[in-house]
Amino acid sequence: MGELMRRYWLPVMLSSELPAPDCPPVRVKVLSEELVAFRDSTGQVGLLAEHCAHRGASLYFGRNEECGLRCVYHGWKYDVHGNCVDMPNEPPESSFKERIHHTAYKTREAGTAIWVYMGPHDPPPPMPELEWTRVPAGHVYVNKRIQENSYLQNVEGELDSSHVSFLHWRFNRKVGALTDYASPAMLADRAPRFTVLNTDYGLLVGARRNVPGDDSQYFWRITQFMMPTFTMIPAPPGRYLDFTAAVPQDDENMIGLTVAWRPDRPLSAEDLAEIESWESVHTEVDKNFRPVRNRDNNYGLDRQLQKTKNYTGIRGIREQDIAVQESMGPIYDRRKEHLGSSDAAIISMRRRMLQAIKNLQEGREPYEVSHPELYRLRSAIAVLPREVPFDEGAKESLEATV
Amino acid sequence: MGELMRRYWLPVMLSSELPAPDCPPVRVKVLSEELVAFRDSTGQVGLLAEHCAHRGASLYFGRNEECGLRCVYHGWKYDVHGNCVDMPNEPPESSFKERIHHTAYKTREAGTAIWVYMGPHDPPPPMPELEWTRVPAGHVYVNKRIQENSYLQNVEGELDSSHVSFLHWRFNRKVGALTDYASPAMLADRAPRFTVLNTDYGLLVGARRNVPGDDSQYFWRITQFMMPTFTMIPAPPGRYLDFTAAVPQDDENMIGLTVAWRPDRPLSAEDLAEIESWESVHTEVDKNFRPVRNRDNNYGLDRQLQKTKNYTGIRGIREQDIAVQESMGPIYDRRKEHLGSSDAAIISMRRRMLQAIKNLQEGREPYEVSHPELYRLRSAIAVLPREVPFDEGAKESLEATV
Amino acid sequence: MGELMRRYWLPVMLSSELPAPDCPPVRVKVLSEELVAFRDSTGQVGLLAEHCAHRGASLYFGRNEECGLRCVYHGWKYDVHGNCVDMPNEPPESSFKERIHHTAYKTREAGTAIWVYMGPHDPPPPMPELEWTRVPAGHVYVNKRIQENSYLQNVEGELDSSHVSFLHWRFNRKVGALTDYASPAMLADRAPRFTVLNTDYGLLVGARRNVPGDDSQYFWRITQFMMPTFTMIPAPPGRYLDFTAAVPQDDENMIGLTVAWRPDRPLSAEDLAEIESWESVHTEVDKNFRPVRNRDNNYGLDRQLQKTKNYTGIRGIREQDIAVQESMGPIYDRRKEHLGSSDAAIISMRRRMLQAIKNLQEGREPYEVSHPELYRLRSAIAVLPREVPFDEGAKESLEATV
Repeated sequence: MGELMRRYWLPVMLSSELPAPDCPPVRVKVLSEELVAFRDSTGQVGLLAEHCAHRGASLYFGRNEECGLRCVYHGWKYDVHGNCVDMPNEPPESSFKERIHHTAYKTREAGTAIWVYMGPHDPPPPMPELEWTRVPAGHVYVNKRIQENSYLQNVEGELDSSHVSFLHWRFNRKVGALTDYASPAMLADRAPRFTVLNTDYGLLVGARRNVPGDDSQYFWRITQFMMPTFTMIPAPPGRYLDFTAAVPQDDENMIGLTVAWRPDRPLSAEDLAEIESWESVHTEVDKNFRPVRNRDNNYGLDRQLQKTKNYTGIRGIREQDIAVQESMGPIYDRRKEHLGSSDAAIISMRRRMLQAIKNLQEGREPYEVSHPELYRLRSAIAVLPREVPFDEGAKESLEATV
Repeated sequence: MGELMRRYWLPVMLSSELPAPDCPPVRVKVLSEELVAFRDSTGQVGLLAEHCAHRGASLYFGRNEECGLRCVYHGWKYDVHGNCVDMPNEPPESSFKERIHHTAYKTREAGTAIWVYMGPHDPPPPMPELEWTRVPAGHVYVNKRIQENSYLQNVEGELDSSHVSFLHWRFNRKVGALTDYASPAMLADRAPRFTVLNTDYGLLVGARRNVPGDDSQYFWRITQFMMPTFTMIPAPPGRYLDFTAAVPQDDENMIGLTVAWRPDRPLSAEDLAEIESWESVHTEVDKNFRPVRNRDNNYGLDRQLQKTKNYTGIRGIREQDIAVQESMGPIYDRRKEHLGSSDAAIISMRRRMLQAIKNLQEGREPYEVSHPELYRLRSAIAVLPREVPFDEGAKESLEATV
Repeated sequence: MGELMRRYWLPVMLSSELPAPDCPPVRVKVLSEELVAFRDSTGQVGLLAEHCAHRGASLYFGRNEECGLRCVYHGWKYDVHGNCVDMPNEPPESSFKERIHHTAYKTREAGTAIWVYMGPHDPPPPMPELEWTRVPAGHVYVNKRIQENSYLQNVEGELDSSHVSFLHWRFNRKVGALTDYASPAMLADRAPRFTVLNTDYGLLVGARRNVPGDDSQYFWRITQFMMPTFTMIPAPPGRYLDFTAAVPQDDENMIGLTVAWRPDRPLSAEDLAEIESWESVHTEVDKNFRPVRNRDNNYGLDRQLQKTKNYTGIRGIREQDIAVQESMGPIYDRRKEHLGSSDAAIISMRRRMLQAIKNLQEGREPYEVSHPELYRLRSAIAVLPREVPFDEGAKESLEATV
């Protein structure tokens, strides 16, 4: 799985974690590797193995200056490419520094996030053309969190349209328009039927619900799974759009990104107020990106709230998700699960992953990696005549325009 | 050993942890299994495997309502028997829920404690007829604690009459009546001789001390070991009676129960004041049942107190016991021990345990499990003529009356 | 390596940790053994295995009284030699106590430190005749700390004269006299050439720097490595002298001692003020000897300080060392290192260690252990004509006089 992950550009940091040239370096763990990120004097981001090639001191303590990160133990200095550009503790005539090639990964910045490519190919593949990475900075908001479970448990949650009617249920919610979050269809039909389509980029998942009092139409929530761990959850019309990514720190911890963007205009003050109410899919975190409501405080579980206001007694959609996903344990033992028809998307996603691993083992690189235009997608809610396949009926709204 | 433990009813919780129907569920760990306890709408106690059969979310976050515990992830609902009684995320025509049998253990309430049977037999065996489980609620007090060592180290301590003269020694204690705690015999003779008798329920242990200035009598402290891990420590005449149990959470942690009861009348305000002085065998705990004086604060060790007031410098008989038992390490390596004649009861208890394991491996169930009346016992202090065997001389006071 | 370490007297505690006869015992971990130290009624220091030979209770809770440490569980009492001198829970006629030989290690006090010999020889070898262990109490200051990495990473740092020009660099330091810390040679030449000489006690390491504007002389910093893990760092003329030791608690933690002494007179108030400024090689610790500036607070790293005042942004030479040594991980994987010419002393030290292990495996005891006079050494700074070998030119200043 790690080998497969290394085929993709992965978003691992916020650009704002490295706010300026020569700012302090930051520790990052990705795919079980301990790394240090820094922004050099020209603004380029470097991502180096944390421990100096000389004697292993952490480059986190390093001096970020004059286009390189310098180890404080003996002054060895690396550029963003991992070249050792200065070795002042050796005699000037020494050529030792030319023999040092420190682990360094290629980075890109897009959508106010820092992406890394940790794979074997040089040059690396193109960046996936996700819409939120192509809009101006003010159009996009990225929220980062650390979650203490395998990334897969998070991806499974994102693909699971059926839990919305339970885990995220708010009581006494006013019934809204048919395409709204509080759609009469969502409230009336809590056992959606899934249609999962294989695509070049991953899966297209349609969760179908009956429309109360209307035998001619279906209500569809349409979600994409994009390799390796990206998903898009549909927003009601008029709302900013949603994207999520789960990147393994290691087998038992993950970096979670939730992204809100508007293709056509900047996020408004109202949008930002909603995002930072921390009631929706974005979560309030501390300076280490650990959610403020976390395992240690039972995610703020309030049993009185659970009796009167919502299904869980936990505030915030993201915190509700984290609570159940972390409660499955660091790596859930799937021999114990009992999957039903509502888990169709999850089953398909695992098959897709396993197939991609098998392909790679047999020497076939993932197709979508070299076809970044496949990622130009949006998810959607659609109300369609019963006889119309959802991927056809919603075709236009599933395409990105930027 | 785990297989043997599963033959017995085990007390694991206070009834007061589940104070009312539909109250919040509680996490419990017993015999290395993570469980969730809840009291349903009819007042029955359920003890379920913690992780939902569907996708493993913790039922601790569950909704306890309408005669069942409901997982907040997708609304699956279980009754106290582990039946899946509702599965609202699947289509109504689905029969999937009939195929789900979630791990659920049988429970009973007795003596203000909740007992569990985790064994293979259905129906389960009868409950042991311990006197404290048969008196009215006001006659009994149960104190629960978590102790961070193997249950066996605790059982060994309970059976070890000889440590009382050291670990629990208070200086300058007034010499009391001959049968009192501060009996002249206890103070004068600190090397008791042990007589250990095998019984159908376990062991009957007599620790004999000389009576100062009286060559015709012996002072006897009589303690029972009842399978699998129950003990009774003698109280002086007039005092409430004492019982202890040690139940493994796992190999390195245990639930300890200490019980005080009066067969004939409610515990008095004076009794309760003594118990909750936390100076005797009961211990003050936090909301997670961890003792307030614990390993992290050296059990409140006060070296000045140790010089002037008692043997250890630690307040509280139970804390003194916990300090030495935990200090042996999570599982004491018994190849390092050097047992003397005062360890006779401990040696016999281990033999009894090993024999019971051997019997079970050869298909013989423990006899006492199907003979609950064997548990109708009390321990006693007795002063007997030297020629009278202790089990005969004290016969009457060793029998429960309720 | 453990077997080799056991051939040497090791300094593990401050005498002041056991300030008076019959004072409270103290837990100590050395060479992966859990021990309890106590000072008996006559002032002798005992170092016993922590867990009582009887049933394993910790002797840390013991009563230190009347020439022995008594376990509080059953009153067994041990003298400093590990003899069981009282066993009050066994009948007086029992001879059981004569059969108990509890693990006890020989101790000495010298230089206000407590030393232990954990090896196989009886009598133990003589104490190494280090100068600081032979001066009066007021002439010597010993600072103890716990460091969370293998002792070897600390020894490597002490021998590494080259890192001084980087890790410990203070900006804007006034250039001092030629033999001062801020010697023009130290500031101008940051790539010292090493000469490493094998000696009977270990290694004599000369780090040579050019003297600015003087082609006839070299500036030498001369450091000894003394088996098994002792080092001496040169001080400028007039300063008190420096010694360090690293003693393994286990494979991943060490006790570090830094020693300051004056051979000829007591340390002055100014000396002590400098030491306890915690800006030099001594470090401020809490009551458990953990440095106050430690991994959990990033050693007090101040990025603004790093830009303007010193190379690391960390206050204190010792804290700077600890930061890099701990950041290498508990045991640095040396397959990843890239050693250069400035690592000559480190390479030689490892060879010396490996040779000593090989010798021991073949039955040859370390020569220096039985030749304590070899340790009568001082380190030095010297400015010598280029043609003079440093060990000859500095011969006199490398000898202790006390």
